[in-house]
Amino acid sequence: MTYQLILLRHGESEWNSKNLFTGWVDIDLNEKGVGEARRGGELLAEQNLLPDIVHTSVLRRAIHTSYLALDACDRHWIPVKRSWRLNERHYGKLQGLNKAEIRDQFGEDQFMKWRRSYDEPPPAIDKDNQYSQWDDARYADLPEEIRPLTECLKDVVARMLPYWYDQIIPDLRSGKTVLVAAHGNSLRALVKHLDQIGDDDIAALNIPTGIPLLYELDDDLHPVVAGGRYLDPEAAEAGQKAVASQGKK
Amino acid sequence: MTYQLILLRHGESEWNSKNLFTGWVDIDLNEKGVGEARRGGELLAEQNLLPDIVHTSVLRRAIHTSYLALDACDRHWIPVKRSWRLNERHYGKLQGLNKAEIRDQFGEDQFMKWRRSYDEPPPAIDKDNQYSQWDDARYADLPEEIRPLTECLKDVVARMLPYWYDQIIPDLRSGKTVLVAAHGNSLRALVKHLDQIGDDDIAALNIPTGIPLLYELDDDLHPVVAGGRYLDPEAAEAGQKAVASQGKK
Repeated sequence: MTYQLILLRHGESEWNSKNLFTGWVDIDLNEKGVGEARRGGELLAEQNLLPDIVHTSVLRRAIHTSYLALDACDRHWIPVKRSWRLNERHYGKLQGLNKAEIRDQFGEDQFMKWRRSYDEPPPAIDKDNQYSQWDDARYADLPEEIRPLTECLKDVVARMLPYWYDQIIPDLRSGKTVLVAAHGNSLRALVKHLDQIGDDDIAALNIPTGIPLLYELDDDLHPVVAGGRYLDPEAAEAGQKAVASQGKK
Repeated sequence: MTYQLILLRHGESEWNSKNLFTGWVDIDLNEKGVGEARRGGELLAEQNLLPDIVHTSVLRRAIHTSYLALDACDRHWIPVKRSWRLNERHYGKLQGLNKAEIRDQFGEDQFMKWRRSYDEPPPAIDKDNQYSQWDDARYADLPEEIRPLTECLKDVVARMLPYWYDQIIPDLRSGKTVLVAAHGNSLRALVKHLDQIGDDDIAALNIPTGIPLLYELDDDLHPVVAGGRYLDPEAAEAGQKAVASQGKK
């Protein structure tokens, strides 16, 4: 017997298409992203991979994606759990800034470090910056010391893993097909853990938007096939190239 | 200190506008219903009545309504619970049939009994009727004896109350503002209980679509003001008249 875990990165958002760093800023899907989310749900239906429960971040673009995808495969009624631990990486001072401008201003090396180095976070954002999310009601119950003002991928792994162990694994162990609707970096953090990808190698891993990625896991919750299987491999390959070229304007 | 409970009946559905009995058939909102749901959320935002948690049925029109209303008041990220116990009344053999035709065929008296008598359910629907919902995956874990093939309002009260006591009240007691996004009859059942409305008097109570109804409850969970308060009283009055005239073609 294997466990079924489906990862779904939210479709394109209004800021993806404007080439802005988004992070914790709560931007909705754009029209293309709405279509991607629906298509993701259609793929689940076509391949009869119907989630029994969904986990999302607390950000609108992941919540909207899960709503549309589940609606499209007639699973709108399944239980839902949400957590900030599945949020996108907090991009610190870069949130709200244009990727191409950052690249021009700081150079290719620094830009790629901020985007892809495992353990170098961007500079922290000021709490009173309009994009810090410091005053957001959804985080009001969290003590300051656990609330980020910037994160590197290593930080995301550290805050995501407790949710994986405490909330997602029990659902898998109970035999449920679990959907995780989240973000480029929270999903990269999970994939890094599942596939035991090294700190350097993870930089090259891109997850395309809107295409469900199925992991079948063995008794020890290791992937039966490393890297899992995209439900639309051709579209996934095209999508991965698109993610890799972001910021190149 | 009072507890805040907000009831929201889903906006108009594709079958509301076609004048069909819907019940457990899983019909989505129509365009007007989408607008009503968004407007419901705007009313919550305008009056600063922001839910901390939402309870919905497992039917698409309530789930969609809660998604849209919460999105409109920036509360899309709150915890969600769903239960069949908040579903619309199961209308038995009437599901999928035209209200005006039923009225013509069986007469005004029988029609009104089926719609509004407290304890007379319509005839049970056959399990293999396309509208019975008997094969629906979302009810597959429920034993047969608890799954309805028809219901009167009394039946709805009986299956809704355990959810009120076991799931909603604990959220209220913990100080949360609770939103219940549900249906004409599951909400009538709850209002009957809250306001201690008699079995005969409940027939005259209509709940309009898409207008949040706020109940402030005292320490014994009794309404501070009987009947609660609609956030848009004028629209509520117009809506109640519209519901009362249904089936009149």
